[in-house]
Amino acid sequence: MKLGSLKSTKSLDGKLIVFSKDLKSYAKASHICPSLREAVENWTQVQPQLESLYSQLNTAGFSAAIPATDENVFHSALPRTWLFADGSAFIHHIKLVRQARNAPLPETLLTVPLMYQAESGRFLSPTENIPQVDFTHGTDFEAEVGVIVDHVPMGVTPDQALKHIKLVVLINDVSLRGLIPAELAQGFGFFQSKPNKALSPVAVTVDELAGDWKDGRVHLPLLVKHNSEFFGKANAGEMHFHFGQLIAHAAKTRDLAAGSLIGSGTVANEDPTVGSSCLAEKRMIEQIKNGSPTTPFMKDGDTIEIQMNNTKGENIFGRIYQKVIKA
Amino acid sequence: MKLGSLKSTKSLDGKLIVFSKDLKSYAKASHICPSLREAVENWTQVQPQLESLYSQLNTAGFSAAIPATDENVFHSALPRTWLFADGSAFIHHIKLVRQARNAPLPETLLTVPLMYQAESGRFLSPTENIPQVDFTHGTDFEAEVGVIVDHVPMGVTPDQALKHIKLVVLINDVSLRGLIPAELAQGFGFFQSKPNKALSPVAVTVDELAGDWKDGRVHLPLLVKHNSEFFGKANAGEMHFHFGQLIAHAAKTRDLAAGSLIGSGTVANEDPTVGSSCLAEKRMIEQIKNGSPTTPFMKDGDTIEIQMNNTKGENIFGRIYQKVIKA
Repeated sequence: MKLGSLKSTKSLDGKLIVFSKDLKSYAKASHICPSLREAVENWTQVQPQLESLYSQLNTAGFSAAIPATDENVFHSALPRTWLFADGSAFIHHIKLVRQARNAPLPETLLTVPLMYQAESGRFLSPTENIPQVDFTHGTDFEAEVGVIVDHVPMGVTPDQALKHIKLVVLINDVSLRGLIPAELAQGFGFFQSKPNKALSPVAVTVDELAGDWKDGRVHLPLLVKHNSEFFGKANAGEMHFHFGQLIAHAAKTRDLAAGSLIGSGTVANEDPTVGSSCLAEKRMIEQIKNGSPTTPFMKDGDTIEIQMNNTKGENIFGRIYQKVIKA
Repeated sequence: MKLGSLKSTKSLDGKLIVFSKDLKSYAKASHICPSLREAVENWTQVQPQLESLYSQLNTAGFSAAIPATDENVFHSALPRTWLFADGSAFIHHIKLVRQARNAPLPETLLTVPLMYQAESGRFLSPTENIPQVDFTHGTDFEAEVGVIVDHVPMGVTPDQALKHIKLVVLINDVSLRGLIPAELAQGFGFFQSKPNKALSPVAVTVDELAGDWKDGRVHLPLLVKHNSEFFGKANAGEMHFHFGQLIAHAAKTRDLAAGSLIGSGTVANEDPTVGSSCLAEKRMIEQIKNGSPTTPFMKDGDTIEIQMNNTKGENIFGRIYQKVIKA
């Protein structure tokens, strides 16, 4: 099943919709549940009705189908939520960005996930401009995969945690690289350096990914274009920690509210031919090769596009397509 | 005006209530707005009606008044929200806790606030047990003051930020001291070491504090009892950064969602006779004096009580009264 949210002037949670499998049409679902946030909070009750609507929508000639021609009517699939626990589960990414800021690797690199709590009070819509206060902040994108869980009890095991995954989304975790070293030097982690993010317009249940969902990971390339040119196609299946492990880490000392989003961290592969999912990595690779980076951080008007296709080449999540502008 | 939330089996946001000034009674207000969260999101519309109800409730013989005899029916004033940006604005606290873990002081100690994003997807109720997974984690309380804001635009100045403060609350920011060094060594800040917090049952508008609200600070002692014995009465007015500065720091690169909570950090004074607002400080003072700490972290069954009285000795926010139990 594929779900999303229409933008709404009446609710910051948006209005729940169901997308057709081919993403060519959608149907309003707010008669079943007002918003995706509330749907996840009441998953057992609403899921059968939503599945039924999805099934009807995938049948030719369904009368309530609305053509999905204008991507600007869609909000992030989940417009806001209680927790965004963003992991950093691709070791290659950690190695490159730490090298870029001359920071040591954590001793527990391979045994304990890195995780921080990120802004989730308002996700940008998937096509919303990224407002930039100051371009010396080093604006970067980070293409990630995320999962949305129902209520997760404290102390859950990684295996149990996998059963709490209700939906999968893509994420653009906007990062202000220039602010990170000073923030981390204070010892409290990221805050100003990690502003509002955007999610894909479409959130899908795990069954939609069929065999590409395996061992708690999405085994497909994440397609990233910067200024409309190829930037990366790293495979999201190379996560060192799987989503069950990330959820269990987040839930070690607390319950997780239904609707919590758990992020994979920037998708990155060892294979240099697949490109990158953020500018910081590309700059570090340039620095290693040539002594200094040549790719600048995002400039006024730069665009970033993130999507993921299945093995048949069909778009799964719609696309995140954002432009950076001066705030 | 004094607002709060009844626990509800139907909504995780609880049900909005108005407390009488003397906290002896309350009136249901969900006909005006279902929850405190939504009230803050629609403040301009609902505030006059809530003020009117508050005024009626403070008149003897108001028919809808319900005696506030059982504190267990009250949830945290705001049961959950989108952002808890917790500052650390009492320099004395920072000095002591960093000394306790042999961590250096940040170079920007006096110029840039320390802030992390904390759990806010479910606050414990003010009288709810604090579930403890493992007592080797070093369970501690942290008594704080917090403010709840309406929508704050990115780039707000500290002076402008003060106008966005709608409500003031008390906070118990539960901390697992034993988990902090390893988490901070990873470089991503707190996560597992900062589980669910509790707020006071009562949130008050700034005018309720009259002259005790000055320069963006609450100039009153925060009364802390550990196992029913005096533990601290540090004055919350000694904040180095005021709440406007903390809000502006949080909003430097993002808007803050209406309902966001901004915390002062553990209230601490230089004057040793006022005691402390967390165990870590007391232990550090013991260590400096005697070579090693003698006060243990919280044990199974330990209680923590936090409240604040005005200069007439009247309780302003109700009380946080929690017991630590094995999860």
